Amino acid sequence: MNRPLALDRIRVVLSHTSHPGNIGAAARAMKTMGLSQLWLVAPDSFPDAVADARASGATDLLACARVVATLEEALADTVFAAAVTARRRELSLPRMHAREAAVELVDRTQEGEVALVFGNETSGLSNDEVGLCSLPVTIPTNPEFSSLNLGAAVQLLAYEVRMAALVPPPPADPRPEYATHEQFEGFIAHLERAVTASGFHDPANPKRLLPRMRRMFNRIRLEKEEVAILRGMLTTFEQPKRR
Amino acid sequence: MNRPLALDRIRVVLSHTSHPGNIGAAARAMKTMGLSQLWLVAPDSFPDAVADARASGATDLLACARVVATLEEALADTVFAAAVTARRRELSLPRMHAREAAVELVDRTQEGEVALVFGNETSGLSNDEVGLCSLPVTIPTNPEFSSLNLGAAVQLLAYEVRMAALVPPPPADPRPEYATHEQFEGFIAHLERAVTASGFHDPANPKRLLPRMRRMFNRIRLEKEEVAILRGMLTTFEQPKRR
Repeated sequence: MNRPLALDRIRVVLSHTSHPGNIGAAARAMKTMGLSQLWLVAPDSFPDAVADARASGATDLLACARVVATLEEALADTVFAAAVTARRRELSLPRMHAREAAVELVDRTQEGEVALVFGNETSGLSNDEVGLCSLPVTIPTNPEFSSLNLGAAVQLLAYEVRMAALVPPPPADPRPEYATHEQFEGFIAHLERAVTASGFHDPANPKRLLPRMRRMFNRIRLEKEEVAILRGMLTTFEQPKRR
Repeated sequence: MNRPLALDRIRVVLSHTSHPGNIGAAARAMKTMGLSQLWLVAPDSFPDAVADARASGATDLLACARVVATLEEALADTVFAAAVTARRRELSLPRMHAREAAVELVDRTQEGEVALVFGNETSGLSNDEVGLCSLPVTIPTNPEFSSLNLGAAVQLLAYEVRMAALVPPPPADPRPEYATHEQFEGFIAHLERAVTASGFHDPANPKRLLPRMRRMFNRIRLEKEEVAILRGMLTTFEQPKRR
């Protein structure tokens, strides 16, 4: 895939941004690195003159920005999403540093749209939001002062993505067809129904079953065909026994 | 040379900065990446409350900043200086991209102090100033929109320098306990029984189901606890429905 196309397939998703100035700074940071798709999940204030002012010459990105109500909507039709997060989590997926994540992200643009997801300035991404993404990503900062602002975080990831997109990729093996975000979520929802019906899972007392299963299946990229097989199995498990 | 020492030997020199806010932003960007030595050549306004505000938790760097009249003074006792510049110049030295320049800079800290030099927001570094440095450095930006602000440029170079100095092992999560070969085989055998009983799998006409499931779960590299959960699920799927 040629370079401009790879960058065109990368969405920058800002979730629950409090300060419109940071939206403008993110747009400017994106444009300096050749990214153009900005998605805003429930921003506190947008459009906003403060965002326009901070965007400088990148107001065109603000004009085309998509505003949606939930992260799920922003991830529709994506094949991969990296959640930029500073916090360590109890049940963490394996996490990547910005540089390797950028290489992965650019690689995955061969399959479709991908997303780089940033959370609220103060609280970051919620656990649920991180759970919707394929992978948590951290920017290696000074452990004694890791206070990157949102614009700076977008700038660094956008730069890494540009660097990764400019390096020619090694010749690839034939790629399997991977499941989309929707297909993966459809499978997880089906699994939840089946284990609830079987009595293994009690939605009133969920414990950590579903996050664990998400984490386990997210360790690999499920292929479309694998999702189809797994769902076929679940369907037969749900049917009344013939014995 | 160990890591903190390398970062301690890198000066960030801002020459003729117009806006004190940019000095604060630069201090914050430096501190997030573990740099601490800020030198200011003839700033328009410093100290300044606007700089303090933008520095956030990095006002200690501002308090220790050295203010000098000329770039020559700021480069005193350095063994290497990289001039960050966007413009192409008539009589240019060979120029490096930020990433390779950061590696070079960190490498040269073994010999002594080094500097990363940034010019005025509007006019950049003068030819004379670039001439005082060892090497011009550019940040690869979108050729159609290369408008990085000063804080962003400092952030990107500080990040590259940190990456070059640390080449850090990613923060390792505690290693999970993986399933043994026997546990894995026990799970696959259990899966085979369950999908046979449910009617999804016909042992007389096996197709590629079990090899595919082996391949998929092998990619996941199952943990002990995951095998226990999956077998727990299968057991409930095998029980007669209570509905």
